Amino acid sequence: MHILILGAAGMVGRKLTDRLLADGRLGSRDITRMTLQDVVAPARPPHASIAMSTVTSDLAEPGQAAALVAHRPEVIFHLAAIVSGEAEADFDKGYRINLDGTRHLIDAIRAEGDDYHPRLVFTSSIAVFGVPFPEKIGDEFLSAPLTSYGTQKAICELLIADYTRKGFFDGVGIRLPTICVRPGKPNKAASGFFSNIIREPLAGQEAVLPVGDDVMHWHASPRSAVGFLIHAATMDTAAIGPRRSLSMPGLAATVGEQIAALQRVAGKGVVARIKREPDPTIIGIVSGWPRNFATDRALKLGFTTAEQSFDDIIRIHIEDELGGTFAR
Amino acid sequence: MHILILGAAGMVGRKLTDRLLADGRLGSRDITRMTLQDVVAPARPPHASIAMSTVTSDLAEPGQAAALVAHRPEVIFHLAAIVSGEAEADFDKGYRINLDGTRHLIDAIRAEGDDYHPRLVFTSSIAVFGVPFPEKIGDEFLSAPLTSYGTQKAICELLIADYTRKGFFDGVGIRLPTICVRPGKPNKAASGFFSNIIREPLAGQEAVLPVGDDVMHWHASPRSAVGFLIHAATMDTAAIGPRRSLSMPGLAATVGEQIAALQRVAGKGVVARIKREPDPTIIGIVSGWPRNFATDRALKLGFTTAEQSFDDIIRIHIEDELGGTFAR
Repeated sequence: MHILILGAAGMVGRKLTDRLLADGRLGSRDITRMTLQDVVAPARPPHASIAMSTVTSDLAEPGQAAALVAHRPEVIFHLAAIVSGEAEADFDKGYRINLDGTRHLIDAIRAEGDDYHPRLVFTSSIAVFGVPFPEKIGDEFLSAPLTSYGTQKAICELLIADYTRKGFFDGVGIRLPTICVRPGKPNKAASGFFSNIIREPLAGQEAVLPVGDDVMHWHASPRSAVGFLIHAATMDTAAIGPRRSLSMPGLAATVGEQIAALQRVAGKGVVARIKREPDPTIIGIVSGWPRNFATDRALKLGFTTAEQSFDDIIRIHIEDELGGTFAR
Repeated sequence: MHILILGAAGMVGRKLTDRLLADGRLGSRDITRMTLQDVVAPARPPHASIAMSTVTSDLAEPGQAAALVAHRPEVIFHLAAIVSGEAEADFDKGYRINLDGTRHLIDAIRAEGDDYHPRLVFTSSIAVFGVPFPEKIGDEFLSAPLTSYGTQKAICELLIADYTRKGFFDGVGIRLPTICVRPGKPNKAASGFFSNIIREPLAGQEAVLPVGDDVMHWHASPRSAVGFLIHAATMDTAAIGPRRSLSMPGLAATVGEQIAALQRVAGKGVVARIKREPDPTIIGIVSGWPRNFATDRALKLGFTTAEQSFDDIIRIHIEDELGGTFAR
């Protein structure tokens, strides 16, 4: 089986690649070939036991999606996107990559003809939802995004449902929770602090908390995100029905619950590295974000998280990123 | 004030043109110029007291939208679309006109620059909703279309909300109920019978009823549809908020209630011209259509129908289309 990963150089793409290489198979089938694509050169995993190709290209350029699809991968993971902040700052770039790039891809798949019907797994986002919303957002709540990024994701969800309905491919969209703990360096994303306040103290560094302890948000570990992608690629899609995009399960936790979990897992000394510096701008942005979901459809369709509690999310970070240890 | 009507040759476009000409003003401002565009030549109304231009063009062709927008109409009514059945039969044509045509239009408005900020009234459709849905579809119910036409309309709603949020224009999308009584000849649309069973008997002709009396549907008269368009063009949009598309008020009536109303308004002899010929295909199609709505937001924002009952819908048809009389 040939697997194509678009946006393979990103954090989720790298973790998905590692998992697929470790498994050697996807569902019941051996992986015989993988193609890793991104707009920056994807790293070629060392000692890969599977035939690997890397492609550096821009999906929004004419012909680039068609060139990738011409090899007829049986499964395509479409993770490529301009992130929320950049899509908001550069309107044209966001639409060009996040909307037109996806259209090039799905039209290229369609153009391959009736004998080609790959599984397409698309990473959508909870940014398709905008305030006001209920305390828990259910499966029948409208997509009313308040960013261009969320708009582009919501449009792609509609396109993937329609193209799937017409039989051009077998599409599944998954709306990922905020990934926590996100590995790497602190970044300037407004959501960065949810991970920063766990990752940095565990690494012996101070972290800034710009919001109050009562802020609730919707989290899943990187391990869960990869699990969702694998399940979306292997599940029996006959059970989904025509609504092809699903809010993924996650864990609703307040910042206070995050910190209490950190104290249970790592101790008071680690928690003391969190510095409270309220930032009205970030408080304002975060107040418009979804806090909690009722993901009945995804649960019924077999999507499961790797964690039962925020303590688990922290333990997964220590296991997967820190080799089982941390800075006490 | 200069008004541009896209899709002016259609039934709603012609009725809107007639109403604007009769009023001579839109809201508090005199109409000084009207441009009627369609892919087939729009009829030039005789004896028009307002400067009129007609344009025959295809919005999906590069440059055509820009040429229309270059005259900087203050209000643009965007009624142009490939209808549901054709968009389903010709996938490429539907996306080209209904999605790409609209994108050309909104990008052309944006390209005019910061000093141009027209009101854009977009006719969406209740086809953005797909089964399963509640008995009454409310304002927070998801768009999950089951046709390419509904998908294209739902995508345009998202685009118009995002472009409005970014300040490129002042957009309002209105989801029209099924227009009843639709004037003209019987057509092959699956929804045609809702109008046929009223219009044809009133004209002395037989009409075929392919579904059972218990089928409920969501109706508004052509007069109401024009009223919604005028209100969308003149209302204070500050009250709408970021969710720029609204399900319009209408009247939920079963076929049995339609027929009872026809008997009250026109008598038993007219009703006797309805022939019951159940058609399993049409029964199947219609079973997936919305039946009833809770249009709280639209009502609160001042959208009102011209009718209180299905009797009124029939009377409006007799007044507006039949000169006050019918075939007894």
